Amino acid sequence: MNGPRRTSRDIRSESRLDVLHAVLSAGETTRNELVHTTGLSAATVATVVAELTASGIVAETRLTANRVGRPTATLVMNADRGRVVGIDVAETYVRAVIFDAALNQLASVEEQRDEHVTDPNSIVEGIGGVLDRVLAETGVEREAVLGVGVALPGLVQGPSGVSVVVPHWAWHKVELDHLRERVGLPLVIDNPLKVMATAELWLGSGRFASSMATVNLGTGVGAGIVLEGRILRGATNSAGEWGHSLLVLDGRECRCGRRGCVEAYIGAPGIQQTLREIHPSHPLADLTLQRDFIAAMAEAMTGPDPDPAVSATIDRTAYYLGSALADLVAIVNPELVTLTGWTTWALGDWLLPATREHIRTQAPGNSSLDLQVEVSTVRGNSVATGVATIALERFLADVGLLTSHAPIAL
Amino acid sequence: MNGPRRTSRDIRSESRLDVLHAVLSAGETTRNELVHTTGLSAATVATVVAELTASGIVAETRLTANRVGRPTATLVMNADRGRVVGIDVAETYVRAVIFDAALNQLASVEEQRDEHVTDPNSIVEGIGGVLDRVLAETGVEREAVLGVGVALPGLVQGPSGVSVVVPHWAWHKVELDHLRERVGLPLVIDNPLKVMATAELWLGSGRFASSMATVNLGTGVGAGIVLEGRILRGATNSAGEWGHSLLVLDGRECRCGRRGCVEAYIGAPGIQQTLREIHPSHPLADLTLQRDFIAAMAEAMTGPDPDPAVSATIDRTAYYLGSALADLVAIVNPELVTLTGWTTWALGDWLLPATREHIRTQAPGNSSLDLQVEVSTVRGNSVATGVATIALERFLADVGLLTSHAPIAL
Repeated sequence: MNGPRRTSRDIRSESRLDVLHAVLSAGETTRNELVHTTGLSAATVATVVAELTASGIVAETRLTANRVGRPTATLVMNADRGRVVGIDVAETYVRAVIFDAALNQLASVEEQRDEHVTDPNSIVEGIGGVLDRVLAETGVEREAVLGVGVALPGLVQGPSGVSVVVPHWAWHKVELDHLRERVGLPLVIDNPLKVMATAELWLGSGRFASSMATVNLGTGVGAGIVLEGRILRGATNSAGEWGHSLLVLDGRECRCGRRGCVEAYIGAPGIQQTLREIHPSHPLADLTLQRDFIAAMAEAMTGPDPDPAVSATIDRTAYYLGSALADLVAIVNPELVTLTGWTTWALGDWLLPATREHIRTQAPGNSSLDLQVEVSTVRGNSVATGVATIALERFLADVGLLTSHAPIAL
Repeated sequence: MNGPRRTSRDIRSESRLDVLHAVLSAGETTRNELVHTTGLSAATVATVVAELTASGIVAETRLTANRVGRPTATLVMNADRGRVVGIDVAETYVRAVIFDAALNQLASVEEQRDEHVTDPNSIVEGIGGVLDRVLAETGVEREAVLGVGVALPGLVQGPSGVSVVVPHWAWHKVELDHLRERVGLPLVIDNPLKVMATAELWLGSGRFASSMATVNLGTGVGAGIVLEGRILRGATNSAGEWGHSLLVLDGRECRCGRRGCVEAYIGAPGIQQTLREIHPSHPLADLTLQRDFIAAMAEAMTGPDPDPAVSATIDRTAYYLGSALADLVAIVNPELVTLTGWTTWALGDWLLPATREHIRTQAPGNSSLDLQVEVSTVRGNSVATGVATIALERFLADVGLLTSHAPIAL
């Protein structure tokens, strides 16, 4: 009935999660400040902090002398508790990022992938390879690794277990067992949209909103949705596939096979298509690498004399993006939308103002009146960061500090 | 932080809600069956049943003799505990439905409204009028009424309070005070999408799905979304406005002012527009009353020789509906979609098979693989039923049996 039942154990778990988020967010804090920022009682904060320090997750760094009364202990995440690794498996690269237990990034390793090589063994070996390299380059022993997270595109969960469903990838449950063997460390996997949303929830603005969507703009396009502090997964872990909702019925062909998807207009190849429609012979219209194209768009906008065709392309893209975000607002009605991904980093300054205006005029009623639309404050690769966060969350569940409802662990 | 905090009081409330839903659903049940259907422990079921019988919500009707051991008590909702009234304020009518406390419909009263008369006083008086009439016609004393629920289109909630935002309706908070005075009984108001979702959650299939969308097809079009047993409201109570998400960017004009909304294609006037495009001189293309038009469509499909233009219109509508539902599936990824509203009742038999097929081919990945798409099992006017249910829920909150997170009470 009605999904997983909440228990008092979950409530204790949520209190610990609130305190962890608050310590992470503050960098350095005190028990008194935690009472203020979490809304928990002083007694609950004291209990939770005792549990988190006993297990070495949170550390007391120093005592601050007060004018009156006892000195106050300063609390921080215990960075030295161990290491977590996040691995972002994209179509054109595999990237491993290693973090300390306070989720500070220590180092990263990226390898290009031939996007036509999609057999499971190559992808498993690609993941194993960047993991080995990032550990070797930082001199981290495997024993010090609390967990490894892998973000796989198209990961879904159904009655028959977890599988990877990407067009042209033929992955099934059995190969995920190979992945577990190759990694040889506590492993979680999840799909990139859920992972981005987790990064936003732990490290970005998701902590402060009762409902939020974080939207990724790159080759692919999608949304991670957070409702009341939890990731919306959906029946098959596919919630948030806003990139494959319609912008134009029977419109442009999308690589997913459908016509008219949002992604076909605001994914990087879609933006290039728009430029081609505006100015067919424009020199940027023929760049073959997507990231080069987006970077060149940003360059063409910089300076006193922006390229008119590029400028028109950005205006048109903002119209598409704002219209598609107005749909997301119509259905989910979040308090906050954050934008992330490499198109956002490159073009956000030009895209954002017009996009906000298009949302405002198109979203129903006053659903966009108080809506915040911002560039995400999560730094770096939010996919690797997010999935490393899930690995840390899983470790905290394994040691009994959190109850874990959803992350997909192997 | 992260929305309303769950407490152990909420958990007790959820147990009571689970038991109530199970008793309502079963009609007649026993403590042992409740343990089975709710998943609660025998001790919790015993405690909750004791609380619900003590407050007169649930009654023990008779003892069933068993072959061995003590006789078993049969539990039912105590219909005589009181009455609740649900009032559906639509653009063309106001309808009041009175229910007993087991949510059995007793009687209803409907008055036509001139849709051009939108001043708050007329609408308040329209609501008060049907309420007075339904009580008079059934001989119910006002003292016996546990609560009145009113469903108002465009109802939203924001930082400045509750207001009604319908194009051409100029309602503000102050008039809602007039409504409270006119009704003179415990009052809840909510918007129709949330109300439909509540009906589905208490009386329909929503009890058995961890995520569900119920889709209304009438003049207007919208979705009520239920996630893990709770209604998705959104930041301004506007979640579910899927009818005003895009089907075709820059497409047909929608009465909301945007172009290309789902409603402009599958709302009743949109279906008529499709018929007009297929066969401009078709006799049904000029019917002025929407319900007459939809009823005539159903008639034209019945029999051995269905009207080809009507049949083509239904095929096209199923394509629009399936495409738009595939978008809802892409974003929310529910287990179940139920269809309701008078277009569904009239045309569902012809629309549903093709709609299912369009969802299946257009929804991303395997998000629609196990998706159920069904006509709602909630009988009658699900808006009146749903808002009466919210009124009952509010009464249960007022007597301390439920904690109430969201319903908007006046």
